[in-house]
Amino acid sequence: MSLVIVGSLAFDTIETPWERRERIVGGSGTYCSLAASFFTRPKIVGVVGRDFPPAVLKLFKARGIDTEGLEVRPGKTFHWEGRYGYDPNQRETIRTDINVYDGYRPSIPISYRTADIVFLANIDPGLQEDIIHQVRRPRLVAMDTMNHWIRSMPETIWHVLKKVDILFANDEEVRMLTEEPNLIKAGKKILAAGPRLVVTKKGEHGALVFGRRLVFGVLALPCEDVVDPTGAGDTFAGGFLGYLDKVRRFGHPEIRRAAVYGSVLASFTIEDFGIDRLKTLTRREIEARFRRFKKLVSF
Amino acid sequence: MSLVIVGSLAFDTIETPWERRERIVGGSGTYCSLAASFFTRPKIVGVVGRDFPPAVLKLFKARGIDTEGLEVRPGKTFHWEGRYGYDPNQRETIRTDINVYDGYRPSIPISYRTADIVFLANIDPGLQEDIIHQVRRPRLVAMDTMNHWIRSMPETIWHVLKKVDILFANDEEVRMLTEEPNLIKAGKKILAAGPRLVVTKKGEHGALVFGRRLVFGVLALPCEDVVDPTGAGDTFAGGFLGYLDKVRRFGHPEIRRAAVYGSVLASFTIEDFGIDRLKTLTRREIEARFRRFKKLVSF
Repeated sequence: MSLVIVGSLAFDTIETPWERRERIVGGSGTYCSLAASFFTRPKIVGVVGRDFPPAVLKLFKARGIDTEGLEVRPGKTFHWEGRYGYDPNQRETIRTDINVYDGYRPSIPISYRTADIVFLANIDPGLQEDIIHQVRRPRLVAMDTMNHWIRSMPETIWHVLKKVDILFANDEEVRMLTEEPNLIKAGKKILAAGPRLVVTKKGEHGALVFGRRLVFGVLALPCEDVVDPTGAGDTFAGGFLGYLDKVRRFGHPEIRRAAVYGSVLASFTIEDFGIDRLKTLTRREIEARFRRFKKLVSF
Repeated sequence: MSLVIVGSLAFDTIETPWERRERIVGGSGTYCSLAASFFTRPKIVGVVGRDFPPAVLKLFKARGIDTEGLEVRPGKTFHWEGRYGYDPNQRETIRTDINVYDGYRPSIPISYRTADIVFLANIDPGLQEDIIHQVRRPRLVAMDTMNHWIRSMPETIWHVLKKVDILFANDEEVRMLTEEPNLIKAGKKILAAGPRLVVTKKGEHGALVFGRRLVFGVLALPCEDVVDPTGAGDTFAGGFLGYLDKVRRFGHPEIRRAAVYGSVLASFTIEDFGIDRLKTLTRREIEARFRRFKKLVSF
Protein backbone atom coordinates (compact mmCIF):
# COMPACT_ATOMS: atom_id res chain seq x y z
CA MET A 1 0.00 0.00 0.00
CA SER A 2 1.02 3.62 -0.15
CA LEU A 3 0.01 6.81 1.58
CA VAL A 4 0.32 10.25 0.03
CA ILE A 5 0.24 13.22 2.40
CA VAL A 6 -0.40 16.70 1.03
CA GLY A 7 0.27 19.28 3.72
CA SER A 8 2.37 22.19 4.82
CA LEU A 9 6.02 22.33 5.81
CA ALA A 10 6.68 25.32 7.95
CA PHE A 11 8.61 27.28 10.49
CA ASP A 12 6.59 27.80 13.65
CA THR A 13 7.15 30.42 16.32
CA ILE A 14 5.45 29.17 19.43
CA GLU A 15 4.75 30.79 22.73
CA THR A 16 3.42 28.89 25.72
CA PRO A 17 2.92 30.31 29.22
CA TRP A 18 6.34 28.84 30.05
CA GLU A 19 8.56 29.18 27.03
CA ARG A 20 8.98 30.68 23.57
CA ARG A 21 10.61 29.03 20.57
CA GLU A 22 11.39 30.88 17.33
CA ARG A 23 11.18 29.38 13.87
CA ILE A 24 11.26 25.70 14.74
CA VAL A 25 10.28 23.21 12.05
CA GLY A 26 6.59 22.30 11.90
CA GLY A 27 3.71 22.12 9.44
CA SER A 28 0.85 19.67 9.02
CA GLY A 29 2.68 17.61 6.39
CA THR A 30 5.78 17.39 8.57
CA TYR A 31 3.97 16.12 11.67
CA CYS A 32 1.70 13.85 9.70
CA SER A 33 4.41 12.17 7.63
CA LEU A 34 6.77 11.69 10.58
CA ALA A 35 3.95 10.06 12.55
CA ALA A 36 2.94 7.84 9.62
CA SER A 37 6.57 6.83 9.06
CA PHE A 38 6.43 4.59 12.14
CA PHE A 39 4.00 2.34 10.24
CA THR A 40 4.62 2.83 6.52
CA ARG A 41 6.68 4.81 3.98
CA PRO A 42 4.58 7.90 3.33
CA LYS A 43 5.00 10.11 0.27
CA ILE A 44 4.90 13.80 1.00
CA VAL A 45 3.72 16.71 -1.19
CA GLY A 46 4.51 20.32 -0.31
CA VAL A 47 6.87 23.23 -0.82
CA VAL A 48 9.66 24.75 1.25
CA GLY A 49 11.99 27.70 0.76
CA ARG A 50 15.73 27.50 0.47
CA ASP A 51 15.96 28.31 4.18
CA PHE A 52 14.44 24.94 5.14
CA PRO A 53 17.00 22.95 7.17
CA PRO A 54 18.70 20.16 5.18
CA ALA A 55 18.87 18.22 8.44
CA VAL A 56 15.08 17.84 8.38
CA LEU A 57 15.12 16.64 4.78
CA LYS A 58 17.72 14.10 5.90
CA LEU A 59 15.49 13.10 8.78
CA PHE A 60 12.62 12.50 6.31
CA LYS A 61 14.89 10.23 4.23
CA ALA A 62 16.13 8.41 7.31
CA ARG A 63 12.54 7.74 8.32
CA GLY A 64 11.70 6.36 4.87
CA ILE A 65 9.58 9.32 3.78
CA ASP A 66 9.44 9.78 0.00
CA THR A 67 10.17 13.44 -0.77
CA GLU A 68 9.82 13.36 -4.56
CA GLY A 69 6.72 15.54 -4.22
CA LEU A 70 8.51 18.08 -2.06
CA GLU A 71 9.53 21.19 -3.99
CA VAL A 72 12.31 23.49 -2.85
CA ARG A 73 11.72 27.00 -4.18
CA PRO A 74 13.60 30.28 -3.98
CA GLY A 75 12.18 32.30 -1.10
CA LYS A 76 11.21 31.68 2.46
CA THR A 77 9.44 28.74 4.02
CA PHE A 78 5.89 29.23 5.28
CA HIS A 79 5.91 30.74 8.78
CA TRP A 80 3.24 30.56 11.48
CA GLU A 81 3.32 32.21 14.87
CA GLY A 82 0.94 31.27 17.65
CA ARG A 83 0.42 31.51 21.35
CA TYR A 84 -1.10 29.03 23.82
CA GLY A 85 -2.79 29.82 27.12
CA TYR A 86 -2.76 27.68 30.25
CA ASP A 87 -5.46 25.62 28.60
CA PRO A 88 -3.53 23.94 25.77
CA ASN A 89 -6.78 23.58 23.78
CA GLN A 90 -6.88 27.38 23.42
CA ARG A 91 -4.56 28.94 20.89
CA GLU A 92 -4.28 32.24 19.11
CA THR A 93 -2.65 32.82 15.74
CA ILE A 94 -0.42 35.89 15.92
CA ARG A 95 0.80 35.92 12.33
CA THR A 96 0.99 33.82 9.20
CA ASP A 97 3.55 34.43 6.42
CA ILE A 98 2.58 32.14 3.59
CA ASN A 99 5.82 32.89 1.69
CA VAL A 100 6.56 30.09 -0.83
CA TYR A 101 2.98 28.78 -0.50
CA ASP A 102 1.84 31.97 -2.25
CA GLY A 103 0.51 30.78 -5.61
CA TYR A 104 1.66 27.21 -4.95
CA ARG A 105 -0.50 24.54 -6.56
CA PRO A 106 0.39 21.03 -5.41
CA SER A 107 1.33 18.72 -8.22
CA ILE A 108 1.27 15.01 -7.53
CA PRO A 109 4.28 13.20 -9.03
CA ILE A 110 3.50 10.34 -11.43
CA SER A 111 5.00 7.83 -8.98
CA TYR A 112 2.44 8.94 -6.35
CA ARG A 113 -0.66 8.72 -8.52
CA THR A 114 -1.55 5.14 -7.72
CA ALA A 115 -1.61 5.83 -3.96
CA ASP A 116 -4.06 3.74 -1.94
CA ILE A 117 -4.60 6.40 0.71
CA VAL A 118 -4.49 10.15 0.16
CA PHE A 119 -4.49 12.59 3.04
CA LEU A 120 -5.31 16.20 2.31
CA ALA A 121 -4.08 18.06 5.35
CA ASN A 122 -5.39 21.51 6.09
CA ILE A 123 -5.01 23.66 2.94
CA ASP A 124 -7.35 25.64 0.67
CA PRO A 125 -10.32 23.31 0.02
CA GLY A 126 -10.22 24.25 -3.66
CA LEU A 127 -6.68 22.83 -3.85
CA GLN A 128 -7.82 19.77 -1.92
CA GLU A 129 -10.39 19.02 -4.60
CA ASP A 130 -7.84 19.60 -7.32
CA ILE A 131 -5.53 17.00 -5.72
CA ILE A 132 -8.28 14.38 -5.56
CA HIS A 133 -8.55 14.64 -9.34
CA GLN A 134 -4.82 14.08 -9.79
CA VAL A 135 -4.85 10.70 -8.08
CA ARG A 136 -6.12 7.53 -9.70
CA ARG A 137 -8.91 5.84 -7.75
CA PRO A 138 -7.40 5.75 -4.25
CA ARG A 139 -9.02 3.29 -1.82
CA LEU A 140 -9.33 6.00 0.81
CA VAL A 141 -9.31 9.80 0.75
CA ALA A 142 -9.09 11.70 4.03
CA MET A 143 -9.09 15.42 4.65
CA ASP A 144 -8.56 17.91 7.43
CA THR A 145 -9.62 21.55 7.44
CA MET A 146 -9.67 24.55 9.78
CA ASN A 147 -11.89 27.38 11.02
CA HIS A 148 -10.35 29.83 8.51
CA TRP A 149 -11.66 27.83 5.52
CA ILE A 150 -14.95 26.96 7.22
CA ARG A 151 -15.65 30.66 7.64
CA SER A 152 -14.50 31.75 4.20
CA MET A 153 -15.52 28.90 1.88
CA PRO A 154 -17.95 26.49 3.55
CA GLU A 155 -19.67 25.53 0.26
CA THR A 156 -16.37 24.40 -1.21
CA ILE A 157 -15.73 22.22 1.84
CA TRP A 158 -19.18 20.61 1.57
CA HIS A 159 -18.47 20.03 -2.10
CA VAL A 160 -15.08 18.38 -1.44
CA LEU A 161 -16.62 16.25 1.32
CA LYS A 162 -18.66 14.41 -1.34
CA LYS A 163 -15.40 12.92 -2.61
CA VAL A 164 -13.85 12.17 0.75
CA ASP A 165 -14.08 9.05 2.96
CA ILE A 166 -12.81 10.45 6.26
CA LEU A 167 -13.03 13.95 7.69
CA PHE A 168 -10.58 14.80 10.47
CA ALA A 169 -11.49 17.99 12.32
CA ASN A 170 -11.54 19.29 15.85
CA ASP A 171 -14.78 19.61 17.78
CA GLU A 172 -15.02 23.37 17.32
CA GLU A 173 -14.59 22.98 13.56
CA VAL A 174 -17.17 20.19 13.32
CA ARG A 175 -19.67 22.36 15.18
CA MET A 176 -18.87 25.40 13.04
CA LEU A 177 -19.10 23.52 9.75
CA THR A 178 -22.43 21.89 10.55
CA GLU A 179 -23.87 24.72 12.69
CA GLU A 180 -24.84 22.00 15.13
CA PRO A 181 -23.59 22.01 18.75
CA ASN A 182 -24.26 18.28 19.33
CA LEU A 183 -21.38 16.18 17.96
CA ILE A 184 -23.55 13.16 17.10
CA LYS A 185 -26.04 15.27 15.16
CA ALA A 186 -23.11 17.11 13.56
CA GLY A 187 -21.51 13.79 12.64
CA LYS A 188 -24.73 12.60 11.01
CA LYS A 189 -24.91 15.77 8.88
CA ILE A 190 -21.37 15.15 7.64
CA LEU A 191 -21.97 11.47 6.93
CA ALA A 192 -25.04 12.48 4.93
CA ALA A 193 -22.76 14.60 2.71
CA GLY A 194 -20.55 11.67 1.71
CA PRO A 195 -17.81 10.64 4.15
CA ARG A 196 -18.12 7.28 5.85
CA LEU A 197 -16.20 8.43 8.93
CA VAL A 198 -15.91 11.62 10.95
CA VAL A 199 -12.96 11.74 13.32
CA THR A 200 -13.51 14.58 15.78
CA LYS A 201 -10.36 15.52 17.66
CA LYS A 202 -10.96 16.98 21.10
CA GLY A 203 -7.44 17.77 22.34
CA GLU A 204 -7.00 16.70 25.96
CA HIS A 205 -10.43 15.01 25.80
CA GLY A 206 -9.36 12.55 23.10
CA ALA A 207 -11.23 11.85 19.91
CA LEU A 208 -14.56 10.51 18.73
CA VAL A 209 -14.77 8.29 15.65
CA PHE A 210 -18.24 8.30 14.19
CA GLY A 211 -19.52 6.24 11.28
CA ARG A 212 -22.81 4.80 10.08
CA ARG A 213 -22.54 1.78 12.35
CA LEU A 214 -19.61 2.83 14.53
CA VAL A 215 -19.15 5.02 17.57
CA PHE A 216 -15.70 4.74 19.08
CA GLY A 217 -14.16 7.00 21.66
CA VAL A 218 -10.46 7.22 22.38
CA LEU A 219 -9.15 9.10 25.37
CA ALA A 220 -6.09 11.28 25.33
CA LEU A 221 -3.51 9.94 27.74
CA PRO A 222 -3.59 12.30 30.74
CA CYS A 223 -0.33 14.23 30.46
CA GLU A 224 1.31 16.10 33.30
CA ASP A 225 3.49 18.31 31.11
CA VAL A 226 2.05 19.45 27.82
CA VAL A 227 5.13 21.25 26.50
CA ASP A 228 3.79 22.21 23.06
CA PRO A 229 0.41 21.08 21.66
CA THR A 230 1.31 22.17 18.10
CA GLY A 231 0.93 19.39 15.57
CA ALA A 232 -1.01 17.03 17.84
CA GLY A 233 -3.94 16.86 15.41
CA ASP A 234 -1.73 16.27 12.36
CA THR A 235 0.26 13.67 14.27
CA PHE A 236 -3.02 11.96 15.16
CA ALA A 237 -4.04 11.80 11.48
CA GLY A 238 -0.56 10.56 10.51
CA GLY A 239 -0.60 7.75 13.06
CA PHE A 240 -4.19 6.86 12.14
CA LEU A 241 -3.61 6.70 8.37
CA GLY A 242 -0.08 5.27 8.62
CA TYR A 243 -1.49 2.36 10.62
CA LEU A 244 -4.33 1.78 8.13
CA ASP A 245 -1.83 1.86 5.26
CA LYS A 246 0.25 -0.77 7.05
CA VAL A 247 -2.60 -3.17 7.85
CA ARG A 248 -4.31 -2.66 4.46
CA ARG A 249 -7.78 -3.18 5.91
CA PHE A 250 -10.34 -0.54 6.78
CA GLY A 251 -12.77 -2.55 8.93
CA HIS A 252 -14.03 -1.43 12.32
CA PRO A 253 -11.35 -3.26 14.35
CA GLU A 254 -8.61 -1.63 12.24
CA ILE A 255 -10.24 1.80 12.49
CA ARG A 256 -10.47 1.50 16.29
CA ARG A 257 -6.80 0.58 16.56
CA ALA A 258 -5.86 3.30 14.05
CA ALA A 259 -7.54 5.90 16.29
CA VAL A 260 -5.63 4.61 19.31
CA TYR A 261 -2.33 4.71 17.42
CA GLY A 262 -3.17 8.27 16.34
CA SER A 263 -3.73 9.19 19.95
CA VAL A 264 -0.56 7.39 21.04
CA LEU A 265 1.56 9.28 18.53
CA ALA A 266 -0.04 12.61 19.45
CA SER A 267 0.65 11.94 23.12
CA PHE A 268 4.37 11.89 22.28
CA THR A 269 4.35 14.99 20.06
CA ILE A 270 3.05 17.23 22.84
CA GLU A 271 5.84 16.14 25.21
CA ASP A 272 8.38 18.42 23.54
CA PHE A 273 8.54 21.42 21.21
CA GLY A 274 7.85 20.91 17.52
CA ILE A 275 9.00 17.58 16.12
CA ASP A 276 11.69 17.01 18.76
CA ARG A 277 9.96 14.09 20.46
CA LEU A 278 9.14 12.39 17.14
CA LYS A 279 12.83 12.53 16.22
CA THR A 280 13.86 10.19 19.02
CA LEU A 281 10.68 8.11 19.24
CA THR A 282 10.93 4.33 18.75
CA ARG A 283 8.44 1.59 17.80
CA ARG A 284 9.07 -0.01 21.17
CA GLU A 285 7.96 3.19 22.97
CA ILE A 286 4.88 3.35 20.74
CA GLU A 287 3.88 -0.22 21.59
CA ALA A 288 4.47 0.34 25.31
CA ARG A 289 2.22 3.38 25.24
CA PHE A 290 -0.42 1.54 23.21
CA ARG A 291 -0.62 -0.88 26.15
CA ARG A 292 -0.97 2.07 28.55
CA PHE A 293 -3.91 3.35 26.49
CA LYS A 294 -5.46 -0.09 26.79
CA LYS A 295 -5.03 -0.06 30.55
CA LEU A 296 -6.38 3.48 30.81
CA VAL A 297 -9.84 2.43 29.64
CA SER A 298 -10.02 -1.26 30.60
CA PHE A 299 -12.77 -2.45 32.91
CA MET B 1 -22.83 -3.15 53.62
CA SER B 2 -24.63 0.16 53.84
CA LEU B 3 -24.36 3.53 52.18
CA VAL B 4 -25.40 6.80 53.80
CA ILE B 5 -26.00 9.76 51.50
CA VAL B 6 -26.12 13.26 52.93
CA GLY B 7 -27.35 15.69 50.31
CA SER B 8 -30.05 18.09 49.28
CA LEU B 9 -33.64 17.45 48.27
CA ALA B 10 -34.96 20.26 46.21
CA PHE B 11 -37.29 21.81 43.71
CA ASP B 12 -35.43 22.84 40.55
CA THR B 13 -36.57 25.31 37.95
CA ILE B 14 -34.65 24.53 34.82
CA GLU B 15 -34.34 26.35 31.55
CA THR B 16 -32.63 24.86 28.51
CA PRO B 17 -32.48 26.41 25.03
CA TRP B 18 -35.49 24.23 24.18
CA GLU B 19 -37.72 24.03 27.22
CA ARG B 20 -38.45 25.33 30.70
CA ARG B 21 -39.65 23.31 33.69
CA GLU B 22 -40.82 24.85 36.96
CA ARG B 23 -40.26 23.36 40.38
CA ILE B 24 -39.53 19.78 39.43
CA VAL B 25 -38.01 17.51 42.07
CA GLY B 26 -34.22 17.44 42.19
CA GLY B 27 -31.37 17.83 44.65
CA SER B 28 -28.02 16.06 45.01
CA GLY B 29 -29.36 13.60 47.59
CA THR B 30 -32.34 12.76 45.42
CA TYR B 31 -30.32 11.97 42.28
CA CYS B 32 -27.59 10.21 44.21
CA SER B 33 -29.85 7.93 46.24
CA LEU B 34 -32.06 7.01 43.28
CA ALA B 35 -28.96 6.09 41.27
CA ALA B 36 -27.48 4.07 44.15
CA SER B 37 -30.80 2.28 44.69
CA PHE B 38 -30.18 0.18 41.57
CA PHE B 39 -27.31 -1.52 43.41
CA THR B 40 -28.00 -1.25 47.15
CA ARG B 41 -30.44 0.16 49.73
CA PRO B 42 -29.07 3.64 50.44
CA LYS B 43 -29.94 5.64 53.54
CA ILE B 44 -30.66 9.28 52.90
CA VAL B 45 -30.13 12.32 55.16
CA GLY B 46 -31.71 15.69 54.38
CA VAL B 47 -34.63 17.99 54.94
CA VAL B 48 -37.69 18.92 52.91
CA GLY B 49 -40.61 21.27 53.47
CA ARG B 50 -44.24 20.26 53.77
CA ASP B 51 -44.62 21.08 50.07
CA PHE B 52 -42.42 18.15 49.02
CA PRO B 53 -44.49 15.68 46.96
CA PRO B 54 -45.52 12.56 48.90
CA ALA B 55 -45.29 10.67 45.60
CA VAL B 56 -41.51 11.14 45.63
CA LEU B 57 -41.26 9.89 49.22
CA LYS B 58 -43.25 6.87 48.05
CA LEU B 59 -40.86 6.43 45.14
CA PHE B 60 -37.94 6.44 47.60
CA LYS B 61 -39.61 3.68 49.62
CA ALA B 62 -40.45 1.70 46.50
CA ARG B 63 -36.81 1.85 45.45
CA GLY B 64 -35.66 0.62 48.87
CA ILE B 65 -34.25 3.95 50.02
CA ASP B 66 -34.20 4.33 53.81
CA THR B 67 -35.70 7.74 54.67
CA GLU B 68 -35.32 7.64 58.46
CA GLY B 69 -32.77 10.46 58.16
CA LEU B 70 -35.11 12.58 56.08
CA GLU B 71 -36.77 15.37 58.06
CA VAL B 72 -39.98 17.03 56.97
CA ARG B 73 -40.18 20.56 58.40
CA PRO B 74 -42.71 23.34 58.26
CA GLY B 75 -41.80 25.68 55.45
CA LYS B 76 -40.72 25.37 51.86
CA THR B 77 -38.37 22.90 50.22
CA PHE B 78 -35.01 24.19 48.96
CA HIS B 79 -35.38 25.73 45.50
CA TRP B 80 -32.76 26.20 42.79
CA GLU B 81 -33.21 27.87 39.44
CA GLY B 82 -30.71 27.55 36.63
CA ARG B 83 -30.27 27.98 32.93
CA TYR B 84 -28.25 25.95 30.41
CA GLY B 85 -26.77 27.17 27.13
CA TYR B 86 -26.34 25.13 23.95
CA ASP B 87 -23.22 23.67 25.57
CA PRO B 88 -24.74 21.55 28.35
CA ASN B 89 -21.49 21.87 30.32
CA GLN B 90 -22.22 25.58 30.79
CA ARG B 91 -24.82 26.54 33.36
CA GLU B 92 -25.82 29.65 35.19
CA THR B 93 -27.53 29.79 38.58
CA ILE B 94 -30.37 32.30 38.47
CA ARG B 95 -31.55 32.00 42.07
CA THR B 96 -31.26 29.83 45.14
CA ASP B 97 -33.87 29.82 47.94
CA ILE B 98 -32.41 27.72 50.72
CA ASN B 99 -35.74 27.70 52.65
CA VAL B 100 -35.82 24.74 55.10
CA TYR B 101 -32.05 24.26 54.73
CA ASP B 102 -31.62 27.60 56.55
CA GLY B 103 -30.05 26.65 59.88
CA TYR B 104 -30.40 22.92 59.14
CA ARG B 105 -27.69 20.78 60.71
CA PRO B 106 -27.81 17.18 59.47
CA SER B 107 -28.19 14.66 62.25
CA ILE B 108 -27.33 11.07 61.46
CA PRO B 109 -29.87 8.61 62.93
CA ILE B 110 -28.47 5.93 65.27
CA SER B 111 -29.39 3.22 62.76
CA TYR B 112 -27.16 4.93 60.15
CA ARG B 113 -24.07 5.33 62.33
CA THR B 114 -22.41 2.06 61.45
CA ALA B 115 -22.53 2.81 57.71
CA ASP B 116 -19.69 1.36 55.64
CA ILE B 117 -19.76 4.12 53.03
CA VAL B 118 -20.68 7.74 53.66
CA PHE B 119 -21.23 10.19 50.85
CA LEU B 120 -21.22 13.88 51.65
CA ALA B 121 -22.85 15.48 48.65
CA ASN B 122 -22.33 19.15 47.99
CA ILE B 123 -23.16 21.10 51.19
CA ASP B 124 -21.30 23.50 53.50
CA PRO B 125 -17.88 21.86 54.10
CA GLY B 126 -18.17 22.67 57.80
CA LEU B 127 -21.31 20.50 57.96
CA GLN B 128 -19.53 17.81 55.96
CA GLU B 129 -16.84 17.60 58.63
CA ASP B 130 -19.47 17.54 61.35
CA ILE B 131 -21.15 14.53 59.72
CA ILE B 132 -17.89 12.56 59.50
CA HIS B 133 -17.68 12.81 63.29
CA GLN B 134 -21.19 11.43 63.70
CA VAL B 135 -20.43 8.17 61.91
CA ARG B 136 -18.48 5.32 63.47
CA ARG B 137 -15.40 4.33 61.49
CA PRO B 138 -16.86 3.99 57.97
CA ARG B 139 -14.76 2.02 55.50
CA LEU B 140 -15.05 4.76 52.93
CA VAL B 141 -15.92 8.46 53.07
CA ALA B 142 -16.55 10.34 49.83
CA MET B 143 -17.39 13.98 49.29
CA ASP B 144 -18.46 16.36 46.58
CA THR B 145 -18.22 20.14 46.65
CA MET B 146 -18.83 23.14 44.37
CA ASN B 147 -17.30 26.41 43.21
CA HIS B 148 -19.32 28.41 45.77
CA TRP B 149 -17.60 26.67 48.72
CA ILE B 150 -14.20 26.59 47.00
CA ARG B 151 -14.34 30.35 46.65
CA SER B 152 -15.68 31.09 50.12
CA MET B 153 -14.06 28.47 52.39
CA PRO B 154 -11.15 26.71 50.66
CA GLU B 155 -9.25 26.08 53.92
CA THR B 156 -12.24 24.21 55.36
CA ILE B 157 -12.39 22.02 52.27
CA TRP B 158 -8.67 21.19 52.50
CA HIS B 159 -9.22 20.39 56.16
CA VAL B 160 -12.17 18.06 55.46
CA LEU B 161 -10.21 16.39 52.66
CA LYS B 162 -7.82 14.98 55.28
CA LYS B 163 -10.65 12.79 56.51
CA VAL B 164 -12.00 11.78 53.13
CA ASP B 165 -11.12 8.84 50.84
CA ILE B 166 -12.68 10.00 47.58
CA LEU B 167 -13.24 13.48 46.23
CA PHE B 168 -15.82 13.83 43.47
CA ALA B 169 -15.64 17.19 41.69
CA ASN B 170 -15.90 18.55 38.18
CA ASP B 171 -12.80 19.61 36.26
CA GLU B 172 -13.40 23.32 36.80
CA GLU B 173 -13.71 22.76 40.56
CA VAL B 174 -10.58 20.60 40.74
CA ARG B 175 -8.62 23.31 38.94
CA MET B 176 -10.08 26.05 41.13
CA LEU B 177 -9.42 24.20 44.38
CA THR B 178 -5.81 23.34 43.55
CA GLU B 179 -5.06 26.47 41.49
CA GLU B 180 -3.52 24.09 38.98
CA PRO B 181 -4.74 23.91 35.36
CA ASN B 182 -3.28 20.44 34.70
CA LEU B 183 -5.60 17.71 36.01
CA ILE B 184 -2.84 15.23 36.82
CA LYS B 185 -0.87 17.80 38.81
CA ALA B 186 -4.11 18.91 40.45
CA GLY B 187 -4.93 15.29 41.29
CA LYS B 188 -1.53 14.82 42.90
CA LYS B 189 -2.05 17.88 45.10
CA ILE B 190 -5.37 16.49 46.31
CA LEU B 191 -3.96 13.00 46.95
CA ALA B 192 -1.18 14.61 48.97
CA ALA B 193 -3.84 16.13 51.24
CA GLY B 194 -5.37 12.78 52.17
CA PRO B 195 -7.83 11.22 49.70
CA ARG B 196 -6.80 8.07 47.91
CA LEU B 197 -8.92 8.82 44.87
CA VAL B 198 -9.93 11.91 42.92
CA VAL B 199 -12.84 11.45 40.55
CA THR B 200 -12.93 14.38 38.15
CA LYS B 201 -16.22 14.66 36.29
CA LYS B 202 -15.96 16.29 32.88
CA GLY B 203 -19.56 16.33 31.64
CA GLU B 204 -19.77 15.26 28.01
CA HIS B 205 -16.07 14.36 28.13
CA GLY B 206 -16.57 11.66 30.78
CA ALA B 207 -14.57 11.31 33.96
CA LEU B 208 -11.02 10.71 35.12
CA VAL B 209 -10.32 8.52 38.14
CA PHE B 210 -6.93 9.26 39.62
CA GLY B 211 -5.22 7.47 42.48
CA ARG B 212 -1.70 6.77 43.64
CA ARG B 213 -1.29 3.81 41.30
CA LEU B 214 -4.38 4.23 39.16
CA VAL B 215 -5.33 6.34 36.16
CA PHE B 216 -8.64 5.35 34.64
CA GLY B 217 -10.65 7.26 32.09
CA VAL B 218 -14.30 6.69 31.38
CA LEU B 219 -16.02 8.30 28.43
CA ALA B 220 -19.47 9.75 28.51
CA LEU B 221 -21.70 7.95 26.06
CA PRO B 222 -22.17 10.33 23.12
CA CYS B 223 -25.76 11.49 23.43
CA GLU B 224 -27.79 13.03 20.65
CA ASP B 225 -30.40 14.64 22.87
CA VAL B 226 -29.25 16.00 26.21
CA VAL B 227 -32.63 17.04 27.56
CA ASP B 228 -31.52 18.20 31.03
CA PRO B 229 -27.97 17.81 32.40
CA THR B 230 -29.07 18.60 35.98
CA GLY B 231 -28.07 15.90 38.45
CA ALA B 232 -25.67 14.08 36.13
CA GLY B 233 -22.76 14.50 38.56
CA ASP B 234 -24.78 13.38 41.59
CA THR B 235 -26.16 10.45 39.62
CA PHE B 236 -22.60 9.51 38.70
CA ALA B 237 -21.55 9.50 42.37
CA GLY B 238 -24.65 7.51 43.32
CA GLY B 239 -24.02 4.83 40.71
CA PHE B 240 -20.32 4.72 41.63
CA LEU B 241 -20.83 4.37 45.38
CA GLY B 242 -23.94 2.20 45.11
CA TYR B 243 -21.95 -0.28 43.04
CA LEU B 244 -19.04 -0.29 45.53
CA ASP B 245 -21.48 -0.82 48.38
CA LYS B 246 -22.95 -3.78 46.54
CA VAL B 247 -19.64 -5.49 45.69
CA ARG B 248 -18.08 -4.71 49.10
CA ARG B 249 -14.59 -4.42 47.65
CA PHE B 250 -12.67 -1.26 46.82
CA GLY B 251 -9.85 -2.64 44.62
CA HIS B 252 -8.89 -1.19 41.25
CA PRO B 253 -11.12 -3.52 39.19
CA GLU B 254 -14.14 -2.58 41.34
CA ILE B 255 -13.29 1.12 41.15
CA ARG B 256 -13.03 0.97 37.36
CA ARG B 257 -16.41 -0.72 37.06
CA ALA B 258 -17.90 1.66 39.62
CA ALA B 259 -16.86 4.61 37.44
CA VAL B 260 -18.44 3.02 34.39
CA TYR B 261 -21.68 2.35 36.28
CA GLY B 262 -21.62 5.97 37.45
CA SER B 263 -21.29 7.09 33.85
CA VAL B 264 -24.00 4.65 32.72
CA LEU B 265 -26.49 5.97 35.28
CA ALA B 266 -25.66 9.60 34.43
CA SER B 267 -26.21 8.86 30.74
CA PHE B 268 -29.82 7.98 31.58
CA THR B 269 -30.45 10.96 33.87
CA ILE B 270 -29.70 13.50 31.12
CA GLU B 271 -32.19 11.88 28.74
CA ASP B 272 -35.15 13.51 30.46
CA PHE B 273 -35.97 16.33 32.85
CA GLY B 274 -35.17 15.91 36.54
CA ILE B 275 -35.55 12.39 37.87
CA ASP B 276 -38.07 11.31 35.22
CA ARG B 277 -35.75 8.87 33.46
CA LEU B 278 -34.56 7.32 36.74
CA LYS B 279 -38.19 6.62 37.68
CA THR B 280 -38.69 4.18 34.81
CA LEU B 281 -35.13 2.84 34.55
CA THR B 282 -34.54 -0.92 34.95
CA ARG B 283 -31.50 -3.05 35.83
CA ARG B 284 -31.77 -4.68 32.42
CA GLU B 285 -31.41 -1.28 30.69
CA ILE B 286 -28.43 -0.49 32.90
CA GLU B 287 -26.66 -3.72 31.99
CA ALA B 288 -27.37 -3.23 28.29
CA ARG B 289 -25.85 0.23 28.42
CA PHE B 290 -22.87 -1.03 30.43
CA ARG B 291 -22.13 -3.28 27.43
CA ARG B 292 -22.45 -0.28 25.09
CA PHE B 293 -19.87 1.57 27.19
CA LYS B 294 -17.57 -1.43 26.81
CA LYS B 295 -18.01 -1.43 23.06
CA LEU B 296 -17.49 2.33 22.88
CA VAL B 297 -13.87 2.04 24.03
CA SER B 298 -12.88 -1.50 23.00
CA PHE B 299 -9.97 -1.99 20.66
